[in-house]
Amino acid sequence: MTFPVLGSTGAGSTIRMKGRCRITSPASVVGPKEGRGPLGQFFDLVVEDDLLGQSSWEKAEREMLLHSVRTACEKVNLTPEDAQLLLAGDLLNQTITSGYAARSVDVPYLGLYGACATFVESLFFGAALVEGGFCDPVVCATASHHNTAERQYRLPTEFAAQRPPEAQWTVTGAAAFVLSGSRSSASEGELEARVLSATVGRVVDFSVSDTYDLGSAMAPAAADTLLRHFADTGRGPDDFDLILSGDLGRLGSELSRELVQRNAGINLSPDNYWDAGVLIYSSEQNVNAGGSGCACQPVTFAGYIWKVARKLQLGRVLLLGTGALHSPVACQQGESIPGIAHAVEIGFTAVNKQAGEQ
Amino acid sequence: MTFPVLGSTGAGSTIRMKGRCRITSPASVVGPKEGRGPLGQFFDLVVEDDLLGQSSWEKAEREMLLHSVRTACEKVNLTPEDAQLLLAGDLLNQTITSGYAARSVDVPYLGLYGACATFVESLFFGAALVEGGFCDPVVCATASHHNTAERQYRLPTEFAAQRPPEAQWTVTGAAAFVLSGSRSSASEGELEARVLSATVGRVVDFSVSDTYDLGSAMAPAAADTLLRHFADTGRGPDDFDLILSGDLGRLGSELSRELVQRNAGINLSPDNYWDAGVLIYSSEQNVNAGGSGCACQPVTFAGYIWKVARKLQLGRVLLLGTGALHSPVACQQGESIPGIAHAVEIGFTAVNKQAGEQ
Repeated sequence: MTFPVLGSTGAGSTIRMKGRCRITSPASVVGPKEGRGPLGQFFDLVVEDDLLGQSSWEKAEREMLLHSVRTACEKVNLTPEDAQLLLAGDLLNQTITSGYAARSVDVPYLGLYGACATFVESLFFGAALVEGGFCDPVVCATASHHNTAERQYRLPTEFAAQRPPEAQWTVTGAAAFVLSGSRSSASEGELEARVLSATVGRVVDFSVSDTYDLGSAMAPAAADTLLRHFADTGRGPDDFDLILSGDLGRLGSELSRELVQRNAGINLSPDNYWDAGVLIYSSEQNVNAGGSGCACQPVTFAGYIWKVARKLQLGRVLLLGTGALHSPVACQQGESIPGIAHAVEIGFTAVNKQAGEQ
Repeated sequence: MTFPVLGSTGAGSTIRMKGRCRITSPASVVGPKEGRGPLGQFFDLVVEDDLLGQSSWEKAEREMLLHSVRTACEKVNLTPEDAQLLLAGDLLNQTITSGYAARSVDVPYLGLYGACATFVESLFFGAALVEGGFCDPVVCATASHHNTAERQYRLPTEFAAQRPPEAQWTVTGAAAFVLSGSRSSASEGELEARVLSATVGRVVDFSVSDTYDLGSAMAPAAADTLLRHFADTGRGPDDFDLILSGDLGRLGSELSRELVQRNAGINLSPDNYWDAGVLIYSSEQNVNAGGSGCACQPVTFAGYIWKVARKLQLGRVLLLGTGALHSPVACQQGESIPGIAHAVEIGFTAVNKQAGEQ
């Protein structure tokens, strides 16, 4: 296998958008462990029981997704049925969390699979559909659950195998956002985010085959997309108030920093480069290298980043979604773990209806 | 569970497009069984060995996907690396066929999951991205393999369990298409198809729980999307030269006809309503109710429909992709099988460069 030169740009480069698509209603729900973490106070809902009264964790996961969709819609005085499209994805085989959740709402639905990069993938599709005038409003939603992911990807959850230091902990939670081109939904002074550009990732595989070490598997893709975004736009890290990667964790985000430095001589500073997988748990929570999962980045963005954006004076933010595209079957057949990362640039602004901005 | 009124329209209705996105290069590859079927002569490639020289059927499936992508690009004098985006999906857990295939080409990639409706889902996303000016060209690709699907969804392939009459046979094959807004790729007189409108489906579940009987599980969704398309556009079956559903098979397509008749008094005639799952195998091929799988509709469309379109004077065609959104885990937990169907309207035209059409 030959490794690509990280950051080299091809025909598929950064897609510039006109900022016509706004994200106006972040909604987040998390499990008890995430609620006890450092960001616990910021989430819309912390459930006390990760079964949510359901008969299986799979059913609990879809209840969380549905709750986040309904909450996001309520925040802009809509019902899910008012949406023209639901874009959703998750980690489970056949993305059953999203498909069965969509059964409970009477709304057109398209399913996505980008592993833990699915949230950013949904933002790109949603923003393009809104800005292009095809659908409005669009709801984007993603979910993951530690207990469903653990038994699907690794071992029976109750087996309680010892987890190596590089392992990450799948976030139990869900997040949803309403995307719309109209500016009627956010109130005066409230924050909204516009989608400004997107860099879709290519699949990068550096032959990592440890299925616990997804941070290392995803790090090259994260560095690649970040460097492609920089090269395409002529920007560097200093042009962003925040770069938030999805779920590289402590090991993966450190590796990404190093790959970016070695390949392009660019330094990512802890001042404005954060990883949601590092933020969401404290080091006392026995999560080893940090958080992961489809919900990790979106609940951190919806719950925490959004709520501190004004205080931290965040304007331009790059969301770098990161995913590992393996399956147990592929790894049993001797395959390594390919990574992918997609970047979406958003700009936070406070709604100012009197200014007559577009 | 309450069943929705089939064909009732909500906020999410038919999306009208401007016909700026053209499909110019259909490519198809199928396995030996499909090659021996009634459409065998129309496919670009019939492989003699469904392992394609690989060490597993999963690896063979991704080789077919890659082959179709390369063939589609070659037909318009491109390489996959010239594409700005690859949209792909398949039936395997974590859509590994698409993810690992994308690793072999240096092109930005977004993964989709719509079960056997994934092809039409990819056409909708691709057409919107091209028409909206976000990406061009876009490659859409889907694949399935009888032997990988059988063991993932049901029983070990070698077990050779007796299959009930309602069972369908997953098509071994892959198809790819290049979507572009420019008209430079097809030669004078060659056919190209424009994407004219799309009706994204909602998830419809009529409580079918027989995991062999996917035709019955998908039929209500097919009827729902078809009736919503008719209601939104004021059209009926006579307005189409052909309505091609994906993989309802003999039983499912008969049920769809009946549901459309009973719910709206509309008759679907065998003259212009066909199902790819019925077309692709002959009744002597021991496929019971017909073909199915992510590849069923796109190889039939790329291989057969496209090549007879001129002879049959096909102008307006409605592609109705149909998918069953279950998983073995969901069904083991007592769930029924939700169906979904997406419709994309396309118009065939012969390239006429001198006419100066847009």
